[in-house]
Amino acid sequence: MKSILLIVVVVLSVVAHAQTADSAFIRRIYDKALTESEAYSNLRYLCKNIGHRISGSAAAQQAVEWSLKLMDSYGFDNAYLQPVMVPYWKRGTKEEGWYKTGMGELQKVHLLALGGSVGTNGTIEAEIVEFKTLEDLKKATKAQVEKKIVFVNEPMNSKHISTFNAYGGCVSIRAYSAEEAGKLGALAVIIRSVGMPIDEHPHTGSMYYGEDAKVKIPAAAISTQDAENLSALLQQQKVKFVLRMDCEYVGMVQSFNVIAEMKGTVHPNKIITVGGHMDSWDTGEGAHDDGAGLMHSLEALRILKNLNYKPKNTLRVVFFMNEENGNYGGEMYAKKAKESGEEHIAAIESDAGGFVPRGFHLDGNSQQLAFLQSLAPVLKPYDLHVFEKGYGGVDIGPLKRQFDSIPLFGFIPDSQRYFDVHHSPNDVFETVNKRELELGCAAIASLLYLIDANF
Amino acid sequence: MKSILLIVVVVLSVVAHAQTADSAFIRRIYDKALTESEAYSNLRYLCKNIGHRISGSAAAQQAVEWSLKLMDSYGFDNAYLQPVMVPYWKRGTKEEGWYKTGMGELQKVHLLALGGSVGTNGTIEAEIVEFKTLEDLKKATKAQVEKKIVFVNEPMNSKHISTFNAYGGCVSIRAYSAEEAGKLGALAVIIRSVGMPIDEHPHTGSMYYGEDAKVKIPAAAISTQDAENLSALLQQQKVKFVLRMDCEYVGMVQSFNVIAEMKGTVHPNKIITVGGHMDSWDTGEGAHDDGAGLMHSLEALRILKNLNYKPKNTLRVVFFMNEENGNYGGEMYAKKAKESGEEHIAAIESDAGGFVPRGFHLDGNSQQLAFLQSLAPVLKPYDLHVFEKGYGGVDIGPLKRQFDSIPLFGFIPDSQRYFDVHHSPNDVFETVNKRELELGCAAIASLLYLIDANF
Repeated sequence: MKSILLIVVVVLSVVAHAQTADSAFIRRIYDKALTESEAYSNLRYLCKNIGHRISGSAAAQQAVEWSLKLMDSYGFDNAYLQPVMVPYWKRGTKEEGWYKTGMGELQKVHLLALGGSVGTNGTIEAEIVEFKTLEDLKKATKAQVEKKIVFVNEPMNSKHISTFNAYGGCVSIRAYSAEEAGKLGALAVIIRSVGMPIDEHPHTGSMYYGEDAKVKIPAAAISTQDAENLSALLQQQKVKFVLRMDCEYVGMVQSFNVIAEMKGTVHPNKIITVGGHMDSWDTGEGAHDDGAGLMHSLEALRILKNLNYKPKNTLRVVFFMNEENGNYGGEMYAKKAKESGEEHIAAIESDAGGFVPRGFHLDGNSQQLAFLQSLAPVLKPYDLHVFEKGYGGVDIGPLKRQFDSIPLFGFIPDSQRYFDVHHSPNDVFETVNKRELELGCAAIASLLYLIDANF
Repeated sequence: MKSILLIVVVVLSVVAHAQTADSAFIRRIYDKALTESEAYSNLRYLCKNIGHRISGSAAAQQAVEWSLKLMDSYGFDNAYLQPVMVPYWKRGTKEEGWYKTGMGELQKVHLLALGGSVGTNGTIEAEIVEFKTLEDLKKATKAQVEKKIVFVNEPMNSKHISTFNAYGGCVSIRAYSAEEAGKLGALAVIIRSVGMPIDEHPHTGSMYYGEDAKVKIPAAAISTQDAENLSALLQQQKVKFVLRMDCEYVGMVQSFNVIAEMKGTVHPNKIITVGGHMDSWDTGEGAHDDGAGLMHSLEALRILKNLNYKPKNTLRVVFFMNEENGNYGGEMYAKKAKESGEEHIAAIESDAGGFVPRGFHLDGNSQQLAFLQSLAPVLKPYDLHVFEKGYGGVDIGPLKRQFDSIPLFGFIPDSQRYFDVHHSPNDVFETVNKRELELGCAAIASLLYLIDANF
């Protein structure tokens, strides 16, 4: 009995010592992040000197080259490119829409073609038919829709506390309205932007025509304010819509994931990945989505290096290409990881914006959840309080198919302002707060350290 | 044994039922706040149509009249003014500063007189002597300081996670530098703005000369960027400063707290107060400080009324006058409360900005803390996680002196962006996010309800 007690005491004191050591090291991480971070100035460069960077574009390639140089300059153990072919969809130079009242008056709207849409091949003008949800559109008859322009006007449900739940609840109108309307003979589809505030910023994003689609009709998002106005007008009279877009799918293009590593001193073949995505939609500056995630990840590694931390396992930062419209970068990374014989023990993704941290979600088993929740006490002083099951991220998702039991951690910043800017011209550097960004870097560096030290 | 078990089961099921009922009602509060709130449009009116409103000013009086009308329009049981005399300090029309290099070149700085400062009575020009902290200034000799302009350049310590701790750590340079420098024969004092980012916005705030001060020297804050530049120049050469300000103390002026109530249906003489402060500094629009707190408080009461809630106790919203430079409104409110024979059972203040809610601090005893912490489960779905001992608020503070055991609750929004805007030209409506403001309204309405239902 005595000896068991002794063992318990020894174990508890080792745990307590480990927690104290962790606490002290995490405090040093936060001190670095809040006083010497380069995340904010790096993000400024990416946003202001390179700007938005859709997969396959010249700007995306500039971002690749700049990122590699930056990683090189930080003196990690290596920095390299991982080739991947990506789809290149190109917004045109003429992209305009108007609605037209019974009196023939034109009202221009704020509009963006959805990513992947075909162009209009000239100008389309037709009567608008409005649906409140995608489900309503699915129930429509051909007679209701044929030769018309379908308008799907489902707002984000503002009652959700997490705006990601509101997004999940209606993003299908963006993804599938063109497919459904096309089947019924519509000429084009416009959707209410999947954005939270009522304002004049249209929000783009990816859409799909479905495998073997026979018809591909143009699809665009109009601003929430335009959607409100248009819907009100449709209560009173028939309205026509005039649409002109010259976007097009160009083809597959050579691109790259950008990668850097601190080699593991004990288990160099065991990999912990941390990353975000390099590509953005071709509007705004991709500041929150996902420039912030890139800078979080890179700065996390830089902080650990500058604290002279010697990781047990290999810590690898990845700037993934093509999250927005295909995830070819994420797929390639997981495939190559498997082929190389590496053992991937954990991955972290930041792709929910550069806002003030709340915590982490886990895509993993109950033992991994117990680990995450055991971190609550050492992370509480930093206002981190979300340690729950949830989603990891699009880029790191394919790792799960290659490595069965790998835990995927999704960084969870506060979500309230994300859908003010997401995929819109409004996603610019000025909407990122320096301290909020830095706290994200520190939170991710802390988790990276805690995984490496405890796995 | 069996009967005790039965009692335990009954008690637990009553508690569980109460929690379920609370949860359902709180969900209704949030639904109202996130879909039908008037807080954001009311704040827009206050900021854009009235603007900043220092105690005693015409704008403060406009704000009083508008608030009374607004409260009246909501059909509470009453709405009224509580007279209070307040100090009126008036910024002048000429307020300028330059530093002057050895070559005689002038560099204009971004500057605001500190609240309560005397003017310069013409132009002051003198050599600058820099101190890093107030403590350093206190240790200075007369020979170091006499006939010079003292520059106190202590930055906010960015390592603090709560920016209020960083503020608390250096706000004394704003409050007491003039008194200390004056004693040593300085001609004026300029301080580094007590603001977090390095930028061009000066931050004002109150300062004190001390009781029976023999000398009163002018005091102003320069922007953090100007402070950095000036300090760098002082490393290289002697620098003079040129200061001109015509601010002045006008005198005591008639003003008002603005109050509205929902009468208690069981204990009308038991009062729960919720409020923020009406006055602001005379720069920016007083959007976060404390227009947001006003709208939080008023909307909390409006939501409960619109849900047809019948409070047990009297719920009272108060727009306090003169928090910034005297707290005459808070003092008057507590004095009148005591005189009237009312029983004050709790008070809530919102004066930390309109940012996303984190929780509440309590100035109270351990039993009251246990109550606050018991609310964690029903408030967790709304991302509220801070339920700790702390500070209530300046306005409600005097209630503690009149009602010994009253618990004071301070609303705690996220603090990261507060000292970007606090007391500066940057504290404008555009820096307030609609959903973040609405979540604050709901959090406060929820606490108000939970106190009323459980006390």
